[in-house]
Amino acid sequence: MERLSPVFATSKSSNMEVEHWMTSLKEVEKVLDSVEPKLTSSGTKWRVVAQHIKDICSDLNQIFNKEDPRYEVVQAGASAAHDFDVRYLDIHKHGREIARLLEKIQKYRQEIEEIKKEYKETDKYRERYDHYKVKLDNLEKKNKDQERIERNQQKFKDAEAAYSSVCADLIQKMETVWKKHVSIFAEAASAVWSTQLQYAKALEAAANPIVPYLQQEEQEEEEEEEAASGTQGRVAEKAYHTNEEKVENSFQKNSAIPPSFRTASEQLTEQSKNINNAKNTSETSPAEDIEA
Amino acid sequence: MERLSPVFATSKSSNMEVEHWMTSLKEVEKVLDSVEPKLTSSGTKWRVVAQHIKDICSDLNQIFNKEDPRYEVVQAGASAAHDFDVRYLDIHKHGREIARLLEKIQKYRQEIEEIKKEYKETDKYRERYDHYKVKLDNLEKKNKDQERIERNQQKFKDAEAAYSSVCADLIQKMETVWKKHVSIFAEAASAVWSTQLQYAKALEAAANPIVPYLQQEEQEEEEEEEAASGTQGRVAEKAYHTNEEKVENSFQKNSAIPPSFRTASEQLTEQSKNINNAKNTSETSPAEDIEA
Repeated sequence: MERLSPVFATSKSSNMEVEHWMTSLKEVEKVLDSVEPKLTSSGTKWRVVAQHIKDICSDLNQIFNKEDPRYEVVQAGASAAHDFDVRYLDIHKHGREIARLLEKIQKYRQEIEEIKKEYKETDKYRERYDHYKVKLDNLEKKNKDQERIERNQQKFKDAEAAYSSVCADLIQKMETVWKKHVSIFAEAASAVWSTQLQYAKALEAAANPIVPYLQQEEQEEEEEEEAASGTQGRVAEKAYHTNEEKVENSFQKNSAIPPSFRTASEQLTEQSKNINNAKNTSETSPAEDIEA
Repeated sequence: MERLSPVFATSKSSNMEVEHWMTSLKEVEKVLDSVEPKLTSSGTKWRVVAQHIKDICSDLNQIFNKEDPRYEVVQAGASAAHDFDVRYLDIHKHGREIARLLEKIQKYRQEIEEIKKEYKETDKYRERYDHYKVKLDNLEKKNKDQERIERNQQKFKDAEAAYSSVCADLIQKMETVWKKHVSIFAEAASAVWSTQLQYAKALEAAANPIVPYLQQEEQEEEEEEEAASGTQGRVAEKAYHTNEEKVENSFQKNSAIPPSFRTASEQLTEQSKNINNAKNTSETSPAEDIEA
């Protein structure tokens, strides 16, 4: 007797197409298993960035010096860092895209679970089909009476048809559920990128107070580099002199000594004037010529 | 005898202004100690972000499905993630701002170290000053001969003047070196923000391939939400029906079954047609009416 389909060929029958789709659905599940926790922890990566900027900027802002105009840059940096922290939190807490996506993934997982249940239920049909296949084989081998063989042939045909029909139904559902992964994965890719871009834009918006200073710094750096080019060997020496000049200039120009010390400092300057040659008169090392 | 300055008042003398600037310089050092390692590890925070995006996007790209137009979104996401990884690395490896800043910090630390050395050297002058102060006190208490007292008064005056002068010099240097922290801190704030903005801009540039899809997704989400508004209670039911409709439509419209299974599938469809009522004829549960 001819068997209807080569896909039911083993002693324990299986439908190769059903198996194929089951494997494919498990592949999808595997991706979901890997992606889901990453999506859940998505915001924490930017928390690290926001915290990092805030940590550095508030460290730098530990020492107040309102008399130096450059202190504005430090303050702008700290204020931008604080602003970004607020903006980051807002996106992290109220960003609906990732949350909505995670809900969809949950629903999709349930659909896959439903398919798995139906897959298990096809076993009943497979068992019935296998039962009549084996029975018919035995009857034929033993040359049993034709009437009994024919009755079981009919039973076998019915079982085979029922199993095929159940498989065909399942295959339709499996394929449909499987195909959904593309739109969910596409939505995941979109949600991830859209969220990343929100964070990036928040960072740019937060940076506003410091941006004008950045352009200044850039110009200064360029000038420094231009000045340094071609005089590579003398750079260190030059920097040293520049520093010395700055020392003198800053000392002449400003008096940023904290108020509490201004009096003492003035006293000292007076003293220095009165005794300005005293150090030079004691020419030997101060500790050497002590009279005991 | 009148002592020149109340700032040399304790038995072991100290110059309060020198001490003040030393404390201030130590505060600066403390900030540098805290900021320097953070600046060094600055790039790694963005590595976490880049890796995170890449991980998710390559997970999503595990299952190829070129027949579904939405697969393009997944591919665009993966390609953008790869691009950002490249751009991140480029900024991280070749970003000169942080490196230049760290060099400046190193040089600045050396300047502070120099000051600390000079501070220690003032001790010799202080010791000499303290020595004559105590000696003179003792001579005066013991009513020693005037000639000896006067000689030591001169020694004491010289020692005092030398110590004052050395302190005044040191104070100038300390103040100048201390003041530099503002421009270095300002440069640090600038370098941090400028680097962050480079990363953010790199992220935006890398996102280019997926941006058109993001706008699409957004529109679709809005439409979905509009459709859902006002029918809150029936949303779940509606979604279910929509899914069912999609199942039918997708099955009628396309045949994305992998080529290797197409033949088997076609066979099965044929079988289903031939025996389409067989399942219904076996009305009881398939496992119940098995003839043993």
